Amino acid sequence: MASVYEFQMAMTCEGCAGAAKRVLGKLPEVSNVETSVEQQRVLVTSTLSPDRLLETLQKTGKECSYIGVK
Amino acid sequence: MASVYEFQMAMTCEGCAGAAKRVLGKLPEVSNVETSVEQQRVLVTSTLSPDRLLETLQKTGKECSYIGVK
Repeated sequence: MASVYEFQMAMTCEGCAGAAKRVLGKLPEVSNVETSVEQQRVLVTSTLSPDRLLETLQKTGKECSYIGVK
Repeated sequence: MASVYEFQMAMTCEGCAGAAKRVLGKLPEVSNVETSVEQQRVLVTSTLSPDRLLETLQKTGKECSYIGVK
């Protein structure tokens, strides 16, 4: 079953947020991604582990960390 | 021997440019990375092939393409 996981991510513009959405959007196990540049947060709905999602987010070259289940 | 390769990359802020520098900077075969948000360009000094460099840049989730040897 899918859960919603919350991540902190250093995003300075909507281009940064778009990058997060694109890298996660490539994974078929990710059903939804919401981003907030203002709050520096990424919410991911997925059946994957938070470790796997964090690893994917880190590929963007942005500083990020896992916060917890929403 | 290292060459300087030019790439186009969709960058909307210095955070985007920093992401490009970080992902490329992880590769020991990359000796220098210069970015221009204004010109949407990334210049990479490396012994790696442009294909390999483009593949790495694409991990950022940004739209990018190879232009040529500088």
